[in-house]
Amino acid sequence: MTGDLAEDYGRLIVQGADQPGIVSRVSTVLVEQGANIVSLDQSTSDPTGGRFFQRTVFHLPGLSVRLDELDQAIEEKLVDGLGLTYRLVEAKRHKRVAILVSKADHCLLDLLWRQRRGELRMSIPMVISNHPDLGDDVRRFGIPFFHVPVEKDGKAAAEKEHLNLLKGNVDLLVLARYMQIISGGFLDELGVPVINIHHSFLPAFMGAGPYQRAKERGVKLVGATAHYVTEDLDEGPIIEQDVIRVSHRESARELQRRGADVERLVLSRAVSWHCDDRVVRDGNSTVVF
Amino acid sequence: MTGDLAEDYGRLIVQGADQPGIVSRVSTVLVEQGANIVSLDQSTSDPTGGRFFQRTVFHLPGLSVRLDELDQAIEEKLVDGLGLTYRLVEAKRHKRVAILVSKADHCLLDLLWRQRRGELRMSIPMVISNHPDLGDDVRRFGIPFFHVPVEKDGKAAAEKEHLNLLKGNVDLLVLARYMQIISGGFLDELGVPVINIHHSFLPAFMGAGPYQRAKERGVKLVGATAHYVTEDLDEGPIIEQDVIRVSHRESARELQRRGADVERLVLSRAVSWHCDDRVVRDGNSTVVF
Amino acid sequence: MTGDLAEDYGRLIVQGADQPGIVSRVSTVLVEQGANIVSLDQSTSDPTGGRFFQRTVFHLPGLSVRLDELDQAIEEKLVDGLGLTYRLVEAKRHKRVAILVSKADHCLLDLLWRQRRGELRMSIPMVISNHPDLGDDVRRFGIPFFHVPVEKDGKAAAEKEHLNLLKGNVDLLVLARYMQIISGGFLDELGVPVINIHHSFLPAFMGAGPYQRAKERGVKLVGATAHYVTEDLDEGPIIEQDVIRVSHRESARELQRRGADVERLVLSRAVSWHCDDRVVRDGNSTVVF
Amino acid sequence: MTGDLAEDYGRLIVQGADQPGIVSRVSTVLVEQGANIVSLDQSTSDPTGGRFFQRTVFHLPGLSVRLDELDQAIEEKLVDGLGLTYRLVEAKRHKRVAILVSKADHCLLDLLWRQRRGELRMSIPMVISNHPDLGDDVRRFGIPFFHVPVEKDGKAAAEKEHLNLLKGNVDLLVLARYMQIISGGFLDELGVPVINIHHSFLPAFMGAGPYQRAKERGVKLVGATAHYVTEDLDEGPIIEQDVIRVSHRESARELQRRGADVERLVLSRAVSWHCDDRVVRDGNSTVVF
Repeated sequence: MTGDLAEDYGRLIVQGADQPGIVSRVSTVLVEQGANIVSLDQSTSDPTGGRFFQRTVFHLPGLSVRLDELDQAIEEKLVDGLGLTYRLVEAKRHKRVAILVSKADHCLLDLLWRQRRGELRMSIPMVISNHPDLGDDVRRFGIPFFHVPVEKDGKAAAEKEHLNLLKGNVDLLVLARYMQIISGGFLDELGVPVINIHHSFLPAFMGAGPYQRAKERGVKLVGATAHYVTEDLDEGPIIEQDVIRVSHRESARELQRRGADVERLVLSRAVSWHCDDRVVRDGNSTVVF
Repeated sequence: MTGDLAEDYGRLIVQGADQPGIVSRVSTVLVEQGANIVSLDQSTSDPTGGRFFQRTVFHLPGLSVRLDELDQAIEEKLVDGLGLTYRLVEAKRHKRVAILVSKADHCLLDLLWRQRRGELRMSIPMVISNHPDLGDDVRRFGIPFFHVPVEKDGKAAAEKEHLNLLKGNVDLLVLARYMQIISGGFLDELGVPVINIHHSFLPAFMGAGPYQRAKERGVKLVGATAHYVTEDLDEGPIIEQDVIRVSHRESARELQRRGADVERLVLSRAVSWHCDDRVVRDGNSTVVF
Repeated sequence: MTGDLAEDYGRLIVQGADQPGIVSRVSTVLVEQGANIVSLDQSTSDPTGGRFFQRTVFHLPGLSVRLDELDQAIEEKLVDGLGLTYRLVEAKRHKRVAILVSKADHCLLDLLWRQRRGELRMSIPMVISNHPDLGDDVRRFGIPFFHVPVEKDGKAAAEKEHLNLLKGNVDLLVLARYMQIISGGFLDELGVPVINIHHSFLPAFMGAGPYQRAKERGVKLVGATAHYVTEDLDEGPIIEQDVIRVSHRESARELQRRGADVERLVLSRAVSWHCDDRVVRDGNSTVVF
Repeated sequence: MTGDLAEDYGRLIVQGADQPGIVSRVSTVLVEQGANIVSLDQSTSDPTGGRFFQRTVFHLPGLSVRLDELDQAIEEKLVDGLGLTYRLVEAKRHKRVAILVSKADHCLLDLLWRQRRGELRMSIPMVISNHPDLGDDVRRFGIPFFHVPVEKDGKAAAEKEHLNLLKGNVDLLVLARYMQIISGGFLDELGVPVINIHHSFLPAFMGAGPYQRAKERGVKLVGATAHYVTEDLDEGPIIEQDVIRVSHRESARELQRRGADVERLVLSRAVSWHCDDRVVRDGNSTVVF
């Protein structure tokens, strides 16, 4: 998972209907172009008539200048020949990740701090919030912060402003405890993946006060789920989940704090894996290599 | 947790509206009767105007013969004086636990093994099933097995037969993957607590094929929840929960196996804690001491 | 766990040789002084001849002015009468916690963030480091930072300077990945508890490169242990531990990152519990209420 | 993980020094022989100069009769050509697994029960014990049980008897809480892998009474480690590990019970993975696909 960072490393993500000989043919395309396969993960949803997924990391001297040529060869062999779809990525091109927050700082700070430490292979061109509170924290990391208030009945206007800021400038949008609903139109318009984090009780305890209601049911675990956002806001494909034990000794507020600890861990893992192209969407599910 | 097993040990479980001086007064009743408090766990749902819970294990020489007298003293001081409710239990009187199963054997066998190994402080007077399949397994442990088929439209008749077998003979009924719905009337009539185990996705993936549907959503954790059964079958107070990590590599069937591993652990913990009077119901929640 | 924060709340921690009637007598001292017991946790190492531990949170109007009187009553009844030892604490007096770090920032920042968010009931009068690197990060939180280099053969001098800074000014010292060995003399001289965090392989993989060596053994879990520091540096009473799953896919460096995630969670829990007087030392073990 | 069970499915495990083009060449050997690759997992210990591991599941009509031919082709291309080593396995040939136990039944029963349920793709030709206690339990599953007492100074004699029973008859030996030390000579002589399970404190709390000593240190997690046995008995390559949380409330005996719950889960996973050829040894480490 580490050799794929420097110059001349690439990633090829392939998916489609499974068929005989496909692993070998995907590998062969790369080898014919002079690439050396560094790592290969493959998965099939079902051995007969299933869907096929492959993530290949390769080394190809002069990759930057040879990218177009490689892309063309892959298209010919895999798309025209086998009906597959693919993504071809230079590892050194970090994804541009914008973060949308409200007032809670735990997920945001965790991402900013990991980014500064060099744990995340991404850049953060901006943080947007419907509240001004976290501006100082963000700017201290040298990252632009934009305050876009969401007035009552002003969601459409706010989304328009979001799009003005984001379109063309980002490869991924992360909702790091952004407490506003995102419209389907916004998702379409934006055109890049959006990752969200929420507590893991859903669909139980939907709406306000989930931790209080969880406590009233006597739950013994609190957790978090990171997922891609689809039109059904909290129902998109799950990327990562985790939980932590709690007991009757913890108040609802303490449950929420424990939940926050899980949220930041789960979100940062999900973002990190996405940025390394380790997550492949499969309908409403995911393959996480 | 261990000293409370032999002769002369008792447990006093007290609950009610919180009020000043209550811990001290509960303790004093026992001490006045000559009991030595071995362990005391106390919890309050809210420091102001909350509900109060206390589990006390005590040693009182000649407990068996002095039980009535002690009971009367407690009733006077705690019920009449403070409006509390209580349970007074001799530790040496093991609870009588019947098990209701269908075809899946994992939860049943786990309980039988642990019982034989001396891990559970209970007796098992009978196992009842709507299928004959597990009869041999059960009888090998020297435990009676009753086959009560549930015909289409025959649920009422089956429940009547269950009641004939159970009433007066058991202190707890465990649904160890019993795949029939229990009626509210049955619960009322039976008059003892009922513990159930189910997969922990609920209320997600309700109904048939939960693991297949969980897989289609890309879940990364599977788990189980043990709870007291109320009229809202799967919505009763939670006693214990746990989870295990899974990935896209596991098939839906493998998810189910992993889930079964969690189910038997979670159910056996819940049953064990109930038998030690460590679980106190608080509305639709629980305190687990 | 939450009601014990405001004015007039106190905590009484009692420990000593177990004996009949002790819970009741400890409670009675408080009640006689007009205190209302809010919560009570009690534990005995062994029902016969064991050690006794009790943590009581109480409410006593005018606690601040009545503290001496209460203290005297407790001393009379519990120390003189029963040979117990105790700690009496006003909940509103936050502990003063100094942090000692080297270059790694993850544990430090986690504590600073939580402190700012109001999660930890403590003040942080200073951070000391043998490296200047983290000074800016610390001062941004409005907390003094002192750089005390440790020269070769200069450990004694550095410890003297540490003592000058710390003595009388702190109630707890936290080693948040401080990579220098602490002398027994320093511990004695300092006179307040010291909490350390280390990876949880110990005593395996002692010394340099633990994650590389763990990888060479194929470990599937990495974790962290927070403990009180004794003369045997990494062998003191454990306060908290946790782990996270890893696989052959993670490089040694990635294992270390995962380990860091666990370290900061475990350390912050241990510090939080200590500050709430929930941890009682029992020889080389702990009771964590 | 599931498609590889029926007729005509095979597994090819390859390992050796990493080198350019190797994934493609391994795949090509199979494809040239008419095999369809069903799944492929690959791992490299280090992208430059590391060790290479690949597990490939394939479908080849008439595999049983074409096995020799395939084997020869692989040997030519991979061993002679690339200096790799490999294992070629027909999925339908279940491994023969003998189990060695003492008196504790939890790991044994878990394996026997999973085997009966069809969870483990293996056969169990025999169970051997140095005590007669578990004979009835084993024979009920229709499995031969041999009692081989180990007298004082009689270890050599017992090992000889073990070898008489085992040699040529088994593909794997599982020590399911076998409380005797195995000699290096026995391992050499036996010539098949041996899997052991032990509590996960090691190297802490080595020897007798580990749970009592863990309790005295205040541990908050108990766990288990399954590993291949080497001459350094408890130091061999780790296959699987897991833990469970505990607190001061649990007695040393209860810690041991919790530990037993983890042991049987961890051992059964390790055995299951080994039988599916998902575990590859890499020096004193493992790759678990």
